[in-house]
Amino acid sequence: MKLTRDNLHDFIRGAAILGTGGGGDPYVGRLMLEQELRKGTDIRILDPDELADDIFAINVFSMGAPTVFVEKIPNGPATVTSVRKVEQVLGRKFNAIMPVEAGGVNATLPLIVGALTGLPVIDADGMGRAFPELQMVTYNVYGVDICPLVTTDDFGNSVTYETSDAARAEWLARGVCVRMGGISQAAAYPMTAEQIRDTAVRHTLTLSVEIGQAVREAREQHRDPVGALLDYFRKARHPRHAAMLFDGKVIDVLRETKHGFTVGRVLLDGIENSSGTCEVTFRNEFLIAKQDGRVAATVPDLICCLDRETAEPITTESLKYGNRVKVVGIAAAPVMRTPEALAIFGPRAFKMEEDFTPLEALG
Amino acid sequence: MKLTRDNLHDFIRGAAILGTGGGGDPYVGRLMLEQELRKGTDIRILDPDELADDIFAINVFSMGAPTVFVEKIPNGPATVTSVRKVEQVLGRKFNAIMPVEAGGVNATLPLIVGALTGLPVIDADGMGRAFPELQMVTYNVYGVDICPLVTTDDFGNSVTYETSDAARAEWLARGVCVRMGGISQAAAYPMTAEQIRDTAVRHTLTLSVEIGQAVREAREQHRDPVGALLDYFRKARHPRHAAMLFDGKVIDVLRETKHGFTVGRVLLDGIENSSGTCEVTFRNEFLIAKQDGRVAATVPDLICCLDRETAEPITTESLKYGNRVKVVGIAAAPVMRTPEALAIFGPRAFKMEEDFTPLEALG
Repeated sequence: MKLTRDNLHDFIRGAAILGTGGGGDPYVGRLMLEQELRKGTDIRILDPDELADDIFAINVFSMGAPTVFVEKIPNGPATVTSVRKVEQVLGRKFNAIMPVEAGGVNATLPLIVGALTGLPVIDADGMGRAFPELQMVTYNVYGVDICPLVTTDDFGNSVTYETSDAARAEWLARGVCVRMGGISQAAAYPMTAEQIRDTAVRHTLTLSVEIGQAVREAREQHRDPVGALLDYFRKARHPRHAAMLFDGKVIDVLRETKHGFTVGRVLLDGIENSSGTCEVTFRNEFLIAKQDGRVAATVPDLICCLDRETAEPITTESLKYGNRVKVVGIAAAPVMRTPEALAIFGPRAFKMEEDFTPLEALG
Repeated sequence: MKLTRDNLHDFIRGAAILGTGGGGDPYVGRLMLEQELRKGTDIRILDPDELADDIFAINVFSMGAPTVFVEKIPNGPATVTSVRKVEQVLGRKFNAIMPVEAGGVNATLPLIVGALTGLPVIDADGMGRAFPELQMVTYNVYGVDICPLVTTDDFGNSVTYETSDAARAEWLARGVCVRMGGISQAAAYPMTAEQIRDTAVRHTLTLSVEIGQAVREAREQHRDPVGALLDYFRKARHPRHAAMLFDGKVIDVLRETKHGFTVGRVLLDGIENSSGTCEVTFRNEFLIAKQDGRVAATVPDLICCLDRETAEPITTESLKYGNRVKVVGIAAAPVMRTPEALAIFGPRAFKMEEDFTPLEALG
């Protein structure tokens, strides 16, 4: 797997799809990456199946509300500051960078940090999608310590958290994030090669490129790009259930930027392939989709709102009245659906009344 | 100057008076100190005029809203955790402890930390009173860096701040303080002997003992304790203007615990020596006193509400309808009234419309 100016657009599109509406609009991330690649910077990508035993990686990401990311954009150098602070606390240097989530701008920021530091980036992440909170990663589910977590603002002010658990780190860092202006640049979850092998969701960078490519090729060949995306997952080496849940027009969006998150819901009226209404609730990412009040998909399964003609993903902060979208559900990887995992990022973890039901059982 | 079980009550009373309504109720601090002294712990106190050149001191304090301190009490061991974290960041050990403020429970916490660590405590502080925010200290006015600041909660979760200035550290740490439950145990402003000599307000621990003693002796000799307190300041080695501003009964208290502070105002009706009404506004500490709408005293001059019979200080979180109080004004030390100092903790720094006017000019 190699990231070039040729597959960059595929990668960005794929990452936005995996972002399930959140993780921030990858547009800015694409511009930053393009700039690096144009300079001739070689961003090395490591296969998680072939890691040297002495790999010591740090996860980097922008924390905050995607609505804010539109104006206050992710910041590579501030993220590097966070990485250096974690190194200071641990007294040990990192030799690899890693994305905490596969979605949105947080899929591209690690590549920028890789370019800025000269370190390789690992083709794996902690969810194979995007989630709103720091404890919502497979690393945490399977025992990796989030600390030291460091968050830095655009002015270089940095804060280091050493807490008993990841949920407590999230709670404190979110308060700081709000006071940093709704976005902060973070480094956390330092991990050894063994921890990566044991807990990460693998090849999600490659996955992004491949699904972005499937959509592009369908467009070029005048096939249905949404159908091509679903086909990709159904026919993948590890097949995953994928289905169109609703074909509709956005008739209402309720959206607030609150306590450091973008929260709300979108309401759709059926067109062509669907009738009735569909409501999708979000907290940075889409969490639950209901058709005429009946649950159609639940987190951590992926729920995406895609432009019905082009399959271009629409993020929660940019949804608006009149968007014609297909709502799509994709089964999460098995490692994301265990009881331990659902306790951390199933619907109940979002204070919802519904239990998780696998997408394929909701047919 | 030596702190013993004999002068402990004088010290506590004096510290509560210098607390100008804030700094937290020193009752709990007294119990903690009594326990240490009963064990035979010798708390060494250093004269700031006789500091060895290799002194390297750290300021410790509880941060939060005094209303919260009543239930969630200051915590010595958590404060020691903060001290150790600052040492880790700096890679250097402290050999002295210092109070950041002379008032309330924050005058006693450094002595507890001194007892727990075996380190001496310096007889000086950064204001000679209490203030609500971290940047409001002479250290900051005269160029000492607040960072690294560390705050720790009762469960040992700790957060380290490295910021461009003290006001930014206050802003971020206050957000964390609220999420830690309204109180956190802090260490900040690491200082050398030279910095202490150049910027601290000296002998404020001794001052607390002496004013507490003046009040006690007046009580014992059936003299007016409030008058004795005023006399003490007027006849001190460095005399300071001190005056009774109002003699009244509390007829209304508006008090909120908001954004990590105890804010509000108390309204008094005149009795015996006063007529009309007096309003005193507070933010943890008393900030401005007005008699019938006319300014009678302004921060940083000290404004205290004392029981009119015993001169026992009444803190902002415990004020209530029916309290018979004498409102007293005491001129702040000259180092607290310079233009640089007023920019940091004059009335304008509290977003008030009034400018600072020296107490003696308001006669």
